[in-house]
Amino acid sequence: MTELPPFDLRAWSARHLDAVEQALARWISPAGPGGLGEAMRYAVLDGGKRLRPLLVLAACDAVGGNPNAALRAACAVELIHAYSLVHDDMPCMDNDVLRRGKPTVHVKFGDATALLAGDALQALAFELLTPTDGSVPDAMQAVLCRLLARAAGHDGMAGGQAIDLASVGQPLSEAQLREMHRLKTGALLQGSVMMGAACQTDHGAAGALAEAALKEYGAAIGLAFQVVDDILDVTGDSATLGKTAGKDAAHDKPTYVSLLGLEASRAYAQALLGQARGALAACGLADTRALAALADAVVHRAS
Amino acid sequence: MTELPPFDLRAWSARHLDAVEQALARWISPAGPGGLGEAMRYAVLDGGKRLRPLLVLAACDAVGGNPNAALRAACAVELIHAYSLVHDDMPCMDNDVLRRGKPTVHVKFGDATALLAGDALQALAFELLTPTDGSVPDAMQAVLCRLLARAAGHDGMAGGQAIDLASVGQPLSEAQLREMHRLKTGALLQGSVMMGAACQTDHGAAGALAEAALKEYGAAIGLAFQVVDDILDVTGDSATLGKTAGKDAAHDKPTYVSLLGLEASRAYAQALLGQARGALAACGLADTRALAALADAVVHRAS
Repeated sequence: MTELPPFDLRAWSARHLDAVEQALARWISPAGPGGLGEAMRYAVLDGGKRLRPLLVLAACDAVGGNPNAALRAACAVELIHAYSLVHDDMPCMDNDVLRRGKPTVHVKFGDATALLAGDALQALAFELLTPTDGSVPDAMQAVLCRLLARAAGHDGMAGGQAIDLASVGQPLSEAQLREMHRLKTGALLQGSVMMGAACQTDHGAAGALAEAALKEYGAAIGLAFQVVDDILDVTGDSATLGKTAGKDAAHDKPTYVSLLGLEASRAYAQALLGQARGALAACGLADTRALAALADAVVHRAS
Repeated sequence: MTELPPFDLRAWSARHLDAVEQALARWISPAGPGGLGEAMRYAVLDGGKRLRPLLVLAACDAVGGNPNAALRAACAVELIHAYSLVHDDMPCMDNDVLRRGKPTVHVKFGDATALLAGDALQALAFELLTPTDGSVPDAMQAVLCRLLARAAGHDGMAGGQAIDLASVGQPLSEAQLREMHRLKTGALLQGSVMMGAACQTDHGAAGALAEAALKEYGAAIGLAFQVVDDILDVTGDSATLGKTAGKDAAHDKPTYVSLLGLEASRAYAQALLGQARGALAACGLADTRALAALADAVVHRAS
């Protein structure tokens, strides 16, 4: 087996993020009527770490998949993530007025436009996945829509948010907490990895093995992301986080830290990182360095 | 050409609606977490005329298309319609407390759950279109997702709602009013017809001709629906309509009646019905009786 050269996540990310930002700016039309396009662009452009798009692109790189499909999938998952933040921030949900240092969409454009912009972003995600330009085979389009719809919906992100709503001030077991996070943040992170893997064109046994391993990788980092989020809510400071630290405790929200304690939560995050690495080692793909580096970055991030 | 027997729209609709209601009840799981499934079912089941599903099924009948695909498409467009009503009724939009004689979703379940239920219904629409059971070919799934995403999003329903928001109290030209309605209600009605047509398996010249003609039919009845809505808002009574008559004028909303007057609006609806019939006559399909009867029903309805 050839030794691969050291991997520079920063350079890899910069190159891919450039493509993602350009594509998002091109595909979210400012011409959306009634100010809708402007609100949609405000919600998505110039913000966020773009973890989900990077996971899509890293998984596609690993399987040697269709780069046009992966770029569309990367933008589509980011649109779903962005719409969920717009709706989450609304007065009837978390009532947040600032995000990434800017007024939230409903503060800037009004509640009704925020609601519609979120709705339109969700639809646009599926529009991006179904181009007519021949760049993505129809069968691949169907698989990508399938994965995204499931990751976003009642048995994914929206379902997790509903559990979250229903669980404020309720004692949760670790199993219930894990289920909430598996859906609320894990489903879309895992979905990102699976969408990247679905851009492969190898539908043989090797492709199926890789897909199963990447699914396991996605589940592990999806959960790790949330465990680290809970740790940072306690240990981080608001300036580094870019959001209010200590918010979970203030809202009496169940977290891994409140349930397991800080040290056990850190050990759990490390164990999940080990699981993610193990899945990559077993996937049979030659180059999973970007995925490995992203898993490290998720667990060792400071914000 | 063989003479077709008289067509009984009522019997045809009853049979198809039965299938649609059963499928919706089966496909919207009550198990959606955090009360989400219950709210989603409340928003969709036992209500509405199901015009959009009937258009899907009538178009599929006309082209002799895949009935499994058509049933899924019929339910998917209804989910999009239902989610738009849930969000429209919310306090930050129309603030309606009653729909079809029942408390609206946000009154019954709270604003946050209504927001999430609408979001999850949109995702579920795309989930229904992308089954893994082999009942719908992947390429057809992709086309259906494409049509639905475009009909629902910024250049369709959501865009039309944004224009509507921005136009209250504003003078609109007839062209602007038509554009608003083409998007707000027309896009999903036309999309329903096109999704039904997309269930065909004939991709030859005859299929393309039929598709183009049905697209024109869909545009005509989409607009006719709204013109008749505006007429009924003036001439109907609240009991028959199942909603408050005279609401448009009370909210100073531009309508066809306020712009053209009542008689010219009636003539316009008839002209659009003629256009729809003309498109059917030109489509080259043997049996378009259900589509013709639905066009009549849209224009001559009393509620």
